[in-house]
Amino acid sequence: MPDSLPLFEQGRHLLSVSQFDRDNLQALFDMADAVDPIAKRQAVCTVLDGAMLGSLFFEPSTRTRLSFESAFLRLGGEVTTTTGFTFSSMAKGESIADTARVVSGYSDVLVVRHPDEGSVAQFAAHSIVPVINAGDGTGEHPSQALLDVYTLQKELAARGKNVDGCHIAILGDLKYGRTVHSLIKLMGLHTGVTFTLFAPPGLELPVQIEHDAIAHGHTVRVMDDVEAAVTGADVIYATRVQRERMTDELAQANARGDLLNKSILTRADNLDAIIMHPLPRDSRPDSYDLSSDVDDLPGLAIFHQTDNGLNVRMAIFLTALGVTIEAVNLTSKRRPWKATLRPV
Amino acid sequence: MPDSLPLFEQGRHLLSVSQFDRDNLQALFDMADAVDPIAKRQAVCTVLDGAMLGSLFFEPSTRTRLSFESAFLRLGGEVTTTTGFTFSSMAKGESIADTARVVSGYSDVLVVRHPDEGSVAQFAAHSIVPVINAGDGTGEHPSQALLDVYTLQKELAARGKNVDGCHIAILGDLKYGRTVHSLIKLMGLHTGVTFTLFAPPGLELPVQIEHDAIAHGHTVRVMDDVEAAVTGADVIYATRVQRERMTDELAQANARGDLLNKSILTRADNLDAIIMHPLPRDSRPDSYDLSSDVDDLPGLAIFHQTDNGLNVRMAIFLTALGVTIEAVNLTSKRRPWKATLRPV
Amino acid sequence: MPDSLPLFEQGRHLLSVSQFDRDNLQALFDMADAVDPIAKRQAVCTVLDGAMLGSLFFEPSTRTRLSFESAFLRLGGEVTTTTGFTFSSMAKGESIADTARVVSGYSDVLVVRHPDEGSVAQFAAHSIVPVINAGDGTGEHPSQALLDVYTLQKELAARGKNVDGCHIAILGDLKYGRTVHSLIKLMGLHTGVTFTLFAPPGLELPVQIEHDAIAHGHTVRVMDDVEAAVTGADVIYATRVQRERMTDELAQANARGDLLNKSILTRADNLDAIIMHPLPRDSRPDSYDLSSDVDDLPGLAIFHQTDNGLNVRMAIFLTALGVTIEAVNLTSKRRPWKATLRPV
Repeated sequence: MPDSLPLFEQGRHLLSVSQFDRDNLQALFDMADAVDPIAKRQAVCTVLDGAMLGSLFFEPSTRTRLSFESAFLRLGGEVTTTTGFTFSSMAKGESIADTARVVSGYSDVLVVRHPDEGSVAQFAAHSIVPVINAGDGTGEHPSQALLDVYTLQKELAARGKNVDGCHIAILGDLKYGRTVHSLIKLMGLHTGVTFTLFAPPGLELPVQIEHDAIAHGHTVRVMDDVEAAVTGADVIYATRVQRERMTDELAQANARGDLLNKSILTRADNLDAIIMHPLPRDSRPDSYDLSSDVDDLPGLAIFHQTDNGLNVRMAIFLTALGVTIEAVNLTSKRRPWKATLRPV
Repeated sequence: MPDSLPLFEQGRHLLSVSQFDRDNLQALFDMADAVDPIAKRQAVCTVLDGAMLGSLFFEPSTRTRLSFESAFLRLGGEVTTTTGFTFSSMAKGESIADTARVVSGYSDVLVVRHPDEGSVAQFAAHSIVPVINAGDGTGEHPSQALLDVYTLQKELAARGKNVDGCHIAILGDLKYGRTVHSLIKLMGLHTGVTFTLFAPPGLELPVQIEHDAIAHGHTVRVMDDVEAAVTGADVIYATRVQRERMTDELAQANARGDLLNKSILTRADNLDAIIMHPLPRDSRPDSYDLSSDVDDLPGLAIFHQTDNGLNVRMAIFLTALGVTIEAVNLTSKRRPWKATLRPV
Repeated sequence: MPDSLPLFEQGRHLLSVSQFDRDNLQALFDMADAVDPIAKRQAVCTVLDGAMLGSLFFEPSTRTRLSFESAFLRLGGEVTTTTGFTFSSMAKGESIADTARVVSGYSDVLVVRHPDEGSVAQFAAHSIVPVINAGDGTGEHPSQALLDVYTLQKELAARGKNVDGCHIAILGDLKYGRTVHSLIKLMGLHTGVTFTLFAPPGLELPVQIEHDAIAHGHTVRVMDDVEAAVTGADVIYATRVQRERMTDELAQANARGDLLNKSILTRADNLDAIIMHPLPRDSRPDSYDLSSDVDDLPGLAIFHQTDNGLNVRMAIFLTALGVTIEAVNLTSKRRPWKATLRPV
């Protein structure tokens, strides 16, 4: 990923969280707030009437795809979808440059997911319309980091707290977890954050990311006990440890399979903490992940994250397409159908 | 499937035909009649403007998927589609509860098909928006039974007859045929129906379903000769017998491969009967199914069933989303394009 | 393909380029010109509001599918998509007649691609709505030929030239190249064209097509040297030679892998020629195709072709659905979002 990517604004690709400073991040979040009535089905919007999203998933990611597509459709746009490992014309030797140029000719904005790091940037270099990176291998997945910080900010605000100065415990696979890296990177725009890290042996956070956080004036604490790690945290961000990355000792030591559960939180006297997770959560018996026994705790925010994903992805599209909050409001209206949350 | 499912109305899941009494069935059919100009391309409708259908097919069923998606789109809504045997996040150990909660957050109504009986109900229990069962294994497929009864009623009415007191011959695999079970179950809302059954040995109707029909005051006749079975019937409902379920004797005895054809109908002096079939119809040479030589008979209703499927599925969506017939009419209009049926 | 297909107009299937005479071809191209503001994102259009396209790809062709779907969506219509080798109900023995009748009941127009020559026509025979052939095996792919001729006409016009009397060099696999056959066939509607052909041994143009062109009054020159073939041509139409069709000698003789490149054009003193290609272009090291070193030449029109594909496919849909240019203009409007071509 080039170091010198421009700030994300109208007519730009979104390839990396490095394309944000505090101002355009706040502008994005203001837009995400403004579209909340649309995301919450209180209004319908036609601002993207006639705009086309090309949704290109070179590797499967149903949840991310549905979130992006729903966000675009809720704004009144239209979507064409391509999923699957290969593009039929690529199998005939077509270059990524030709594919990008041709397909971008059909759309107004593209969402691209690819299994190889750097491929989305390469694709973007030949696209004639803005490209939104929906994840490329172990590289970037900027919309996930943005919705994480947006949720963090909203959940803390609901408790009268700020992101500046908050205390976040991050648990799980901190080595390969792309979302954790992007999250910490994006937190560099805030000040005075305390990160408490707990990772199984061999899955610790890369030293460079830790150093960068410290260089931004944050505090980084590394713990080898999960109970101690979550004690006093405002927010606990848990990520699953993939079974193939667990050592035999870890696998044996965690027969119960929980990275975090209600019993740990009880012992840490922190049952009210905000609990986040990038999902999917591994609920198989031998997993090492967030237990579902926390699902009735008041701070559970894992589904707020996925719901907020709609707001943030709408804001990304509106920004790329140069739509103002005023234009959104002018094209929103009431609807004749009834939304039901919690049917029986 | 729980016994005590509530009646199907606004804000409710549709999981089973047991969710209908005669009143809400008639209300659904009135809605299906009301949307006929939209289904027949005489008007376009925007009543579901801004509403999102999540179409989730965990097993392939192209015809059912297209019917549901077309119905929703014709009402002005938008659709996101997911097909394929697995959900990418489920492969990572995500529970059906988490998947349902996350995906329902992107949509206003979900259509779910799953190969395992009971899975759709389990999915619905964790969805925050209404779930329509589009078939789960050998369990329920309520929209098929509803469109069958709707078609039955329209075809009989066109001949000045009623469902109450009619005579239906049901042919084919009555043991595993999910649509037959749901149809007979739903006919429990009507009175005085005569069912004449013809099934190959080993594929007879389960005794419980036969007893239930009799308990509702219907007459059940079991025949071992197809010509006798269709004699005098107002309606003949044929279903294919899957080849893997045919005994060797049956396979040999039916070298011509026809469960029902014009010659049988001629001998039974019933060439005017209403002919129905849930489709697909097996047209391979060694199949044991409805012959296509009946396609020019006046009572052929098998494509009326699929066409009516649009009306019934529109009515299901409008009911779930609390839309009135008045709201549909207010948002319907003429269109500048021309529909052609029977092009050359 | 029957010889006596009717001219393509409202309510008709589009199965073959033989369905055009000079008048209805010009009418189609006038419509393609008229929708240019929509194709170029200067206006949005709602003329197909409420119309449904069924997009049925029995073999993968992502580019063609996206082009058709985008064209329909940009006109305000809605799309349902089915891709994959088999139709789930066809696997159960359903005839192509039943599938066509059922699926056509859900849509207002169908786009069908099938790997077997003649299958699309068979499908169309049982469809109740117009079917657009999107390619059937080695048979027809009329929308590709139409966009080729449309592009040819626009590129020549921009240089003050006409299709009548122009000089086209056609390079590559002229034996199996379906697009080349349809292109030459469609050029039969024009007069006085000179075709200069260059094909590797064994991949020459079928004699019948050459004779037909001559019978239309065109000139056909066959060359065995690519440099001589492109000298003096107004237009160079290159097609890839599939590696499995290359002889060993050809494969060895073309170690550099270029059917056409800047060096050949320089030696032929024809760096300004209009360069076309049906795409995809094979950019693998051992390919025998158009080199990407021509991409900065002023006459490069290969992406104009794919962009024009939107215009031509919009015009096909509008024709089939009987929409006039006036109706398009009445339903077009400005939009609140900004289109960006060439983002960074």
